[in-house]
Amino acid sequence: MTGAMKIGIAGLGTVGSGLCRLIETNGPLLAQRCGRPLVISAVSARDRRKDRGLNLEGARWFEDAVAMAADPELDVVVELIGGAEGVARDTVEAALKFGKHVVTANKALLAQHGTLLARLAEEKGVTLSYEASVAGGIPAIKALREGLAGNRIERIHGILNGTCNYILTTMRESGREFGEVLAEAQKLGYAEADPSFDVDGVDAAHKLAIITALVFGCAVDFDAIHVEGIRRISAIDIDYAEELGFRIKLLGIAQRRNGEIEQRVHPCMVPKDAPIAGVEGVFNAVHAEADFVGRIMIEGPGAGERPTASAVAADLLDLARGTAIPTFGVPSAELERLPTLPMDQHRGAYYLRLLVVDKPGVIADVAAALRDEDISVEAMVQRGRAPGEAVPVVIVTHETSESQMRRALARIEAFESCLEEPRMIRIEQS
Amino acid sequence: MTGAMKIGIAGLGTVGSGLCRLIETNGPLLAQRCGRPLVISAVSARDRRKDRGLNLEGARWFEDAVAMAADPELDVVVELIGGAEGVARDTVEAALKFGKHVVTANKALLAQHGTLLARLAEEKGVTLSYEASVAGGIPAIKALREGLAGNRIERIHGILNGTCNYILTTMRESGREFGEVLAEAQKLGYAEADPSFDVDGVDAAHKLAIITALVFGCAVDFDAIHVEGIRRISAIDIDYAEELGFRIKLLGIAQRRNGEIEQRVHPCMVPKDAPIAGVEGVFNAVHAEADFVGRIMIEGPGAGERPTASAVAADLLDLARGTAIPTFGVPSAELERLPTLPMDQHRGAYYLRLLVVDKPGVIADVAAALRDEDISVEAMVQRGRAPGEAVPVVIVTHETSESQMRRALARIEAFESCLEEPRMIRIEQS
Repeated sequence: MTGAMKIGIAGLGTVGSGLCRLIETNGPLLAQRCGRPLVISAVSARDRRKDRGLNLEGARWFEDAVAMAADPELDVVVELIGGAEGVARDTVEAALKFGKHVVTANKALLAQHGTLLARLAEEKGVTLSYEASVAGGIPAIKALREGLAGNRIERIHGILNGTCNYILTTMRESGREFGEVLAEAQKLGYAEADPSFDVDGVDAAHKLAIITALVFGCAVDFDAIHVEGIRRISAIDIDYAEELGFRIKLLGIAQRRNGEIEQRVHPCMVPKDAPIAGVEGVFNAVHAEADFVGRIMIEGPGAGERPTASAVAADLLDLARGTAIPTFGVPSAELERLPTLPMDQHRGAYYLRLLVVDKPGVIADVAAALRDEDISVEAMVQRGRAPGEAVPVVIVTHETSESQMRRALARIEAFESCLEEPRMIRIEQS
Repeated sequence: MTGAMKIGIAGLGTVGSGLCRLIETNGPLLAQRCGRPLVISAVSARDRRKDRGLNLEGARWFEDAVAMAADPELDVVVELIGGAEGVARDTVEAALKFGKHVVTANKALLAQHGTLLARLAEEKGVTLSYEASVAGGIPAIKALREGLAGNRIERIHGILNGTCNYILTTMRESGREFGEVLAEAQKLGYAEADPSFDVDGVDAAHKLAIITALVFGCAVDFDAIHVEGIRRISAIDIDYAEELGFRIKLLGIAQRRNGEIEQRVHPCMVPKDAPIAGVEGVFNAVHAEADFVGRIMIEGPGAGERPTASAVAADLLDLARGTAIPTFGVPSAELERLPTLPMDQHRGAYYLRLLVVDKPGVIADVAAALRDEDISVEAMVQRGRAPGEAVPVVIVTHETSESQMRRALARIEAFESCLEEPRMIRIEQS
């Protein structure tokens, strides 16, 4: 490609509008950096009359994004519609089939169909880029795929959902409960009216599926991810975490263990002095452990019009500069199908919180249930005393397996003196 | 280029040996990622007989790195000799003149001759890469040049020297003085026998010069940097910093102000909860503020055999994948000569520590000296009382200019009751 790079933008919501503003604001700088102008040649959105405050003179308007993807004049199609199926998928597939590069922010699409789309892009000799799909404005894909390309990466973990991190940070700072903070986040626009996609961990899992494929060179496997959200985190757990030297974060974690891949999204207790513990509010972060570089962490805004537009623009600049790297870092035919480590084989330390009747023998019963599963206790905390009444008891264990822990918890839950389902939060030491 | 990428390595010290080990260990992975093998075709070092524990079969040996740079068989020359002049410079220039790509970890060379070398590379149609020259294993160059390419960057600051950060961290944790901690760092291999290059801020300034050129698209201008080191930081300043809610870090800072560029390296007080305050020990970090993405920080190991080899390898993989970007992100002919903001026009808040005789009127004199320069005081702390004896007094000011501060300090220093030269540390709020 030489001359102007002609772009078609499918979707003029928050990110699409942000991208138009970025190209308008920084156009000359971008042209200087890549040696050619970036031109918005076409746009597609549902409502043409809506005032978005954008100057789109010179851009042709398509009602139908799929029709736009077929436009022979375009070099690149930017898909900012969203969703794993429907118009978004059709648009991306059409663009690739017509030999156009695609830039997308669509994590659901890549998590569900990433391997197939990578193959299609390769067959057509074009690039499928997705920096904006993971961790918003943070150039995490580039850092992992290119910056650490000399390394064998052993483990990644990250704060991949800003809504959850905002809620957990606010719960800690204000002492309030999940429901109240969620309602506030919804008012402030940090959470959707239907928040389940975020707070149940699905969004973080989409992103994790993408970076797992990238760092381990394996096929995208969203269904292999163990996913738990943050609805059950209580203010009292956050208090205990502080007392025990931890912060609670929703992490996405992928690691290699004996040739198997463990992928999981769930709330974690992390040591207060771990770099990721300091990543607060709507910020995201990605932390990698690799054989040569050691530990690297990158943090920044995980969402929003302008940061996400920045990530899309980085992909566009790469294309305009002629950079071409396989979607997941290696040729798609070489993406391995690595076996999944089942969650019941996960190993780690655990935080448990029980609500028990304060009477002789209860602690002994709990301790015996753990001992019988070969789980050793690092700390046990009972706050206050209230003979005959309900008191919380907190236990921190040494490393054990998920299956041992599950069996011990089932036994503990069955005790008559155990008044509610025990709460369990996994501890991650790094 | 197709087929194997043939590499000549000039210098087999720590980083050179690390690179050989990386290519040996991860060779198949690298070949998969870039679609072609990386082959060490030639090496150059002074002492051929030294046992480096490396398998260099198949690599031709050159006593003279400049002769190796002329070898027509090589695609890339990796310069790991070091130093702004002499063999290192001759090798890089020769390689570029012979039309070979160059990868270097040499910050002094780029800080002194970066603009000229960028021009030479461009004339010859080859790439000059230097990820390893700044912040060791951290892919900072890539993040700034490509990851944030859609942005206008307004300010960068970073912890760019691991030796200084190790010393400052250890001083804080142990309460010991600079000299003692430096001696220990020398024993542990974290500081050189002659530490001045690190502790006087020169190494950090070399790195700052490089990233300043990159983020602002301007000619490299090492001489424009205001440089101070950490020798005068005392345990008592670290104590006061804690008390006032700060950490002391040696930062490299570059920012744009009214079309002028301010570049400085000096110890700073940063708020304890700023992301960069948590970067401890030998770790480095780079923090950028940009118009679309907002704030991004990347942290990781700033030196060492394996992390630095990782950065060199990232550059080699980029070359093997065919990525080609101008040295400082824009064509060298377009690198601007931006005017330097003189240090006396710097604006910021200041921490001052005085040693004064505890007698009536002293504080009034000090306060008057500040008032006469229009400097307003945010906090003043006198620890303990000892009438007629020496007591430390600490002052935190609101924002003022460096020239006002310098004049006030000169007046304060002249007071008879002021027993030593006042200490001053600049405060950076972000």
